[in-house]
Amino acid sequence: MITKYQYGNPIETDAVVKDIPLSYGKLPFFNVTNGNTTFSYVLSENDIVYGLGEQVRGINKRGWKYKSYNFDNPNHQEDTNSLYGAHNFLLISGEKMFGVFFDYAGLIEFDIGYTDHKMLIVTADDENMKVYILTGETELDIVKQFREIIGQSYIAPKWAFGYGQSRWGYKTEEDIREVADKHEKYNIPLDSIYLDIDYMERYKDFTVDTQRFKDLKKLQEEMLKRGIHLVPIIDAGVKIEKGYAVYEEGIKYDYFCKDEDGENFVGAVWPGRVHFPDFMKPETRRWFGDQYAVLLDMGIDGFWNDMNEPAIFYTQKRLESVMRRVNELSKQNMGIDEFFEFKGLVEGISNNIEDYNTFFHDINGKKVAHKKVHNLYGYQMTRAAYEAFDRMEKNKRILMFSRSSYIGAHRYGGIWHGDNKSWWSHLLMNMQMLPALNMAGFIFSGADTCGFGSNATEDLVMRWLQLSIFTPLMRNHSAIGTREQELYQFQNVADTKKIIEIRYGLIPYIYSEYMKAVLNNDMMFKPLAFDFRDDILAKATEDQILLGNEVMITPIYKQNAIGRYVYLPEEMMMVRMTSLDQVETKILSKGHHYIQAKLNELVFFIRHGKKIPIAKKAKNTAELHTQKLLFLGWKDASYLYYEDDGISRKYDLEKNTKII
Amino acid sequence: MITKYQYGNPIETDAVVKDIPLSYGKLPFFNVTNGNTTFSYVLSENDIVYGLGEQVRGINKRGWKYKSYNFDNPNHQEDTNSLYGAHNFLLISGEKMFGVFFDYAGLIEFDIGYTDHKMLIVTADDENMKVYILTGETELDIVKQFREIIGQSYIAPKWAFGYGQSRWGYKTEEDIREVADKHEKYNIPLDSIYLDIDYMERYKDFTVDTQRFKDLKKLQEEMLKRGIHLVPIIDAGVKIEKGYAVYEEGIKYDYFCKDEDGENFVGAVWPGRVHFPDFMKPETRRWFGDQYAVLLDMGIDGFWNDMNEPAIFYTQKRLESVMRRVNELSKQNMGIDEFFEFKGLVEGISNNIEDYNTFFHDINGKKVAHKKVHNLYGYQMTRAAYEAFDRMEKNKRILMFSRSSYIGAHRYGGIWHGDNKSWWSHLLMNMQMLPALNMAGFIFSGADTCGFGSNATEDLVMRWLQLSIFTPLMRNHSAIGTREQELYQFQNVADTKKIIEIRYGLIPYIYSEYMKAVLNNDMMFKPLAFDFRDDILAKATEDQILLGNEVMITPIYKQNAIGRYVYLPEEMMMVRMTSLDQVETKILSKGHHYIQAKLNELVFFIRHGKKIPIAKKAKNTAELHTQKLLFLGWKDASYLYYEDDGISRKYDLEKNTKII
Repeated sequence: MITKYQYGNPIETDAVVKDIPLSYGKLPFFNVTNGNTTFSYVLSENDIVYGLGEQVRGINKRGWKYKSYNFDNPNHQEDTNSLYGAHNFLLISGEKMFGVFFDYAGLIEFDIGYTDHKMLIVTADDENMKVYILTGETELDIVKQFREIIGQSYIAPKWAFGYGQSRWGYKTEEDIREVADKHEKYNIPLDSIYLDIDYMERYKDFTVDTQRFKDLKKLQEEMLKRGIHLVPIIDAGVKIEKGYAVYEEGIKYDYFCKDEDGENFVGAVWPGRVHFPDFMKPETRRWFGDQYAVLLDMGIDGFWNDMNEPAIFYTQKRLESVMRRVNELSKQNMGIDEFFEFKGLVEGISNNIEDYNTFFHDINGKKVAHKKVHNLYGYQMTRAAYEAFDRMEKNKRILMFSRSSYIGAHRYGGIWHGDNKSWWSHLLMNMQMLPALNMAGFIFSGADTCGFGSNATEDLVMRWLQLSIFTPLMRNHSAIGTREQELYQFQNVADTKKIIEIRYGLIPYIYSEYMKAVLNNDMMFKPLAFDFRDDILAKATEDQILLGNEVMITPIYKQNAIGRYVYLPEEMMMVRMTSLDQVETKILSKGHHYIQAKLNELVFFIRHGKKIPIAKKAKNTAELHTQKLLFLGWKDASYLYYEDDGISRKYDLEKNTKII
Repeated sequence: MITKYQYGNPIETDAVVKDIPLSYGKLPFFNVTNGNTTFSYVLSENDIVYGLGEQVRGINKRGWKYKSYNFDNPNHQEDTNSLYGAHNFLLISGEKMFGVFFDYAGLIEFDIGYTDHKMLIVTADDENMKVYILTGETELDIVKQFREIIGQSYIAPKWAFGYGQSRWGYKTEEDIREVADKHEKYNIPLDSIYLDIDYMERYKDFTVDTQRFKDLKKLQEEMLKRGIHLVPIIDAGVKIEKGYAVYEEGIKYDYFCKDEDGENFVGAVWPGRVHFPDFMKPETRRWFGDQYAVLLDMGIDGFWNDMNEPAIFYTQKRLESVMRRVNELSKQNMGIDEFFEFKGLVEGISNNIEDYNTFFHDINGKKVAHKKVHNLYGYQMTRAAYEAFDRMEKNKRILMFSRSSYIGAHRYGGIWHGDNKSWWSHLLMNMQMLPALNMAGFIFSGADTCGFGSNATEDLVMRWLQLSIFTPLMRNHSAIGTREQELYQFQNVADTKKIIEIRYGLIPYIYSEYMKAVLNNDMMFKPLAFDFRDDILAKATEDQILLGNEVMITPIYKQNAIGRYVYLPEEMMMVRMTSLDQVETKILSKGHHYIQAKLNELVFFIRHGKKIPIAKKAKNTAELHTQKLLFLGWKDASYLYYEDDGISRKYDLEKNTKII
């Protein structure tokens, strides 16, 4: 059951698409205070708090303080409070069980047993919000109800489930060709190569630097023949430059955010000074969405939207005031107070929350400070793109995923987990985030596998791939200046390529589970406790998750590990693979096991009485034989298999599903 | 067996105190190239590399690149390359087994299977170094040989094994009194309160701000009566201030480091501009050491030496050049290149390695760039203090520990693990560092328990204390601006105080193990694999260590965990304690176990056939009854117990040891 409450005059987020009548009276479960801005709930000793989507720490969010405040922080650690997305859905499971969604576009804080282990305290910047309370029989039941009211999740084309290679730093079309060639040379399957900011002419959206990418259309044609899709990046900020068509149009038709004086607001990002499109205006969304045609017309069929928190390197005003003050300070004999101020000013110059109070959106003719709708910005940018695809490519799925998001954005695109690091701890976090993202509607997702920032080691790459072969998005992405991270940069390509082949073997299953999760408002990735509800060990398991109803994923996430402990909440079949052809299985009993696994050994589990389909080796998704499937698992098991052409936009669940 | 090789003209580090004849010819094990600056060794698949003392990552250092370059980095993560100490001792165990010590005071890099999983590559800045190769029957045998040549480790007074409370931010003597009072009120045992930089007059070494600390001598007397020792901080830099005696003397007798022009070098730290004592000169050491008398004369009997990497906020020259450039940049339309330069310049202003090339030491009349002896600085500062204590307090042990260190410093003081964070990952790292520090001679050590930077949660505090009750130094320390971290700041003092009581119960054992490790050149903390040499699971165990020959420590280091997996390399006795009186034991078989442990339950193991002494509850170490000991463990076991008065400087191993 879902009940809806409203406080003040909320800004419409379009997160919920189903009509739910307003309830009045006391909000269930919570004590509401401070002018309807503080919501407290007393946690019982064993209560688990799930949810919050893209956040640090474990599956159980208890014991830390989180913020919804979309924020560019590639260097996130366990004390980080906010990442790139704002997903204000919580699920409390224990003495009582309920879900709650704070539909609120501004800054909101979740103190989940941080200040007081027994208290959940939610604090918003103001009272203008809707709150949805969900009750149900099981955790999954509550999630499904929630997913139903927020609408069907975005569906990616099947080729986007292939392996993708990306790097900030592919500067020319020769670089791209080299990536394709090397993957071919080493027989590493590949479906996509990503174009980071380097392809643009001085970082101007919807332009191509024709010095370095002579003919992108031709390049895409060439690549498509090789089974590879190019996927360019689009940034939020529009460079201020006379004669640049996008800029000129934005000025002419008044599509940009305004500053306090009503002038177009100036921030700075990659290209230097930019204006930010006011995506809260439908006409801006339509205009910006139409720009994708430049690339769609070249045959491009996939995009990623970036820097749309929006990330701001600096605003001109702040830069000037910081420079004034640091010049003053630097002339003094700076000791602790002055020097900490000096450093703090410069460190705080980017993505400063105060700057988000100095520019404005036009929402139905009303001037609204960006801060009030900050968490919607990336969402509305992605919506702009998707709605344009809807107009321009009626029958074809276009790949779209975004860095920033809010619940609602899941209908318009996937997300990646944001900029991360080549850290073992981020490998684990990658897995831990998946169920929470599913709760919030984000099914097409995955982390930058092997890590974006910092330097990857070969063993980290191997272990991380062994996890990311299970996620819908599987993109190897790294930052300029870090160690090169394409698989052929390491010594043991023979083994890494086999892991990618296993990925392709798993695609029929992963795609089927993905589509069923989307079309049934179900979760693709679940905490163990969702299916083993009375098992206290399952509830405490933070480093294993379920995939569909068939698989349990148990990645190794520690350097130099020769194995790991695994908890089996029921009898399961252990699968050990070093390649698609080298498969060992063994039935293991319910309980604790220590499983040895060499660096090149993938280990996962098939649940009791289940089986999964496996395809043969393929160079890319286009060549994937889904007609002749093999099976892994229990002999007499059946599997509910979804299949479609992977590209057209008609989804007939019944017609496309069969028991095999 | 130990062989010693020499390249070029090394600067004497005094790390090794035993006379070892020089060997000539080819260095065993390594391939030496690039003018004797690069040392390569081919690792076998299962080789483990131990050592490096204070570094990030696990007990097995394989898979990352480390640097010896003492560096102030409280924000260290898994991709950090250097911390506060330089401990160039490695122990390779696998197909071949040997130890190696690169006695080199400058920058040296250890690529341990990072670039190539099969290669250990050590690269020094120049060839001027001594290299010691150690072979032996077992890992422990090699370590003991090494410890013998570097000389006996520093011995702390027994009161320093009591619980200590510290915080950067105790600003007045009333603050100190409040800490003492609150510990008394809540019956939390306590032996020391630390004075961070706040006690000084404008951060000037060997001064006391008498506005805020009216009479430190009286305060110390008052505290000592309550069983509490005050432990003030001493920083490396000496404030430039006319009339300040330490500064004036330093100038007069030429005790400071020089810049390129032969002027006293100017850096800036807490007090603003400072000179750095040239601790490489014996006369400077003597002079600086003598300054401690000011505090010793007040009855102070413990100190910590800080900021002695040395940490440098900025140098005047760099500040000026950075300001010139950022002013230029800020006037441009800064895009990616300019803005990254802008931020990078400011971020690189502190502890810049280039600045370490712009000041000089006088070593036996020779001008030597600081960079060449960078890693000796904190070591020689601590030596200055210890040698002064030797002169001034012949019969009394003075507590001394340092942030920065090099092998050799272990003879003059302990170390803490450097500034850390209230992170679960740092709890684990705390434990993982202990064996490596022991290899390098640092026995009196411990991390800032519960974390220095960032905000601690109550559950983190509980779990961290459950580890740090086993380390010689047990100091709860936190930074200004973070959540207050004294145990009484959290709700469940009843449980945390019991953990501290258990610490006191364990002191007879911990102190005994500490003294035996020091006097026998033994390790107090060992990796499991050192005692279970043929057990591949023991070799792979990274989250359990041995304490002495009796105990296995198995801390819980994950939030919301209800237990953990433990590997027993032999039958052991599990001990479960919620207080000194509430003890459960159970014999568990060799193999894997999942052990449940509530937040207030300490779990550790007693090895087969062993027992440990336990004292009764005590308010502080002075009141500890070591006459009437209880025992935990196997009934018929005996224990080799060391005891002494804990304060005098005569250590008679035989006389003070008995089998009980």
